[in-house]
Amino acid sequence: MGYIYGVNPVLEAVNSGKTINKIYVQKGNKEACEVMKKANEKKIVTVFAEKNKLDRMITMEGEKIKNSQGIVASVTDFEYVEVEDILDYAKSKNEPPFVIILDKIEDPHNLGAILRTVECMGVHGCIIQKRNACQVTDTVEKVAAGACSYVKVARVTNITETIKYLKKEGLWIYGLDMEGAKDIFDVKLDGAIGIVIGNEGEGITRLVKENCDEMLKIPMSGNINSLNASVSAAISIYEIVRQKLKGV
Amino acid sequence: MGYIYGVNPVLEAVNSGKTINKIYVQKGNKEACEVMKKANEKKIVTVFAEKNKLDRMITMEGEKIKNSQGIVASVTDFEYVEVEDILDYAKSKNEPPFVIILDKIEDPHNLGAILRTVECMGVHGCIIQKRNACQVTDTVEKVAAGACSYVKVARVTNITETIKYLKKEGLWIYGLDMEGAKDIFDVKLDGAIGIVIGNEGEGITRLVKENCDEMLKIPMSGNINSLNASVSAAISIYEIVRQKLKGV
Repeated sequence: MGYIYGVNPVLEAVNSGKTINKIYVQKGNKEACEVMKKANEKKIVTVFAEKNKLDRMITMEGEKIKNSQGIVASVTDFEYVEVEDILDYAKSKNEPPFVIILDKIEDPHNLGAILRTVECMGVHGCIIQKRNACQVTDTVEKVAAGACSYVKVARVTNITETIKYLKKEGLWIYGLDMEGAKDIFDVKLDGAIGIVIGNEGEGITRLVKENCDEMLKIPMSGNINSLNASVSAAISIYEIVRQKLKGV
Repeated sequence: MGYIYGVNPVLEAVNSGKTINKIYVQKGNKEACEVMKKANEKKIVTVFAEKNKLDRMITMEGEKIKNSQGIVASVTDFEYVEVEDILDYAKSKNEPPFVIILDKIEDPHNLGAILRTVECMGVHGCIIQKRNACQVTDTVEKVAAGACSYVKVARVTNITETIKYLKKEGLWIYGLDMEGAKDIFDVKLDGAIGIVIGNEGEGITRLVKENCDEMLKIPMSGNINSLNASVSAAISIYEIVRQKLKGV
């Protein structure tokens, strides 16, 4: 059990057909009441509640009080899929598989932003680690701004084994790293692709790196030379989409 | 007065020559002590302090206790520059000016990630609004992971007037918007350029949009159709750098 809150995230959950137990709405809050109307059309149970009750509902003990924007949906936990489901989904769309593999991303803001980019730009799914990595929490769902109602996320215990499996399935695995051998725009990125993004501090772990087919880098020219993980993910996803639509 | 904390951000501040009043270091913390050594070489005053004192130093009342990673630098507030300084900086590098203009970005995670990308990818500076927008706070400096020691940020009260001034100075101003007329990779992005990124919820305000020379969009194909502000900024910056290095 968890909560989704905020006008847009709840609206996305309603539109997506995600299983919602109940929606709590602040009386008189115009935007929240509009979402309530849509939820009622879909036969979702809605009840009124005071704003401060809503804010408390979504705030953990010891945290600063969060702002619910007058609307909270109680939902079943995020439903993870299997890696095979992601490949099947690509097949069902008649597209070569395109997946993002996260090697121990820890920050929920990064994971949320990555899942949002994955959904917006038509990536088939995202693979994360079960341990020592950020899971799809309420904060992640909020940052992802509704994307979690659609995006496919698989959890695995051994990412190296998963990469070996994906290679057997025909995917070419690129790792992103500031010491990558080639600039990302100098490589023809088509066919079935997996992109590995490393941890915020440590980058991609050695063993994972050794299992990548090729290491790529994003061109940089400043005094500091490492981008935010969600930014690296976004740029690599964009480059693949750009090449698909426009050519190398 | 403010604080910079965490091993990498403090190291960046030391390396950049930023004015540091004092650095507080946890005794026995290996990474923190290495930074201390570098600071001492630069004649910066350092003192030992308990880990929990350091953590409390950087935590505001009511917040969850933050992790200092055993090192905190007390610094003068972030030093903003003028818009002219950004243009002069471009001139000093013999490059056509390239600036990012933020129309009311509110989230410190977004501003921090944007400033980091701006620094890493050689953008000359960033323009933000004085009111109703996130300023360069301690959280922003932390998220920017050291970039704030180098990046040029100008604050303005009226962004429309600033855009008019930049146009007079020869910059072509693009706005980024999901309803933009053209895909960003279909436009030749060279010469002196300003890119406007809109607010997280509202996008670019009407008046600002009317003053842009052209509206561009990033291609999307998912169920939701809006990217995180820091992701939009990163993709547009990357596309301009890519074209510069590789052509349209």
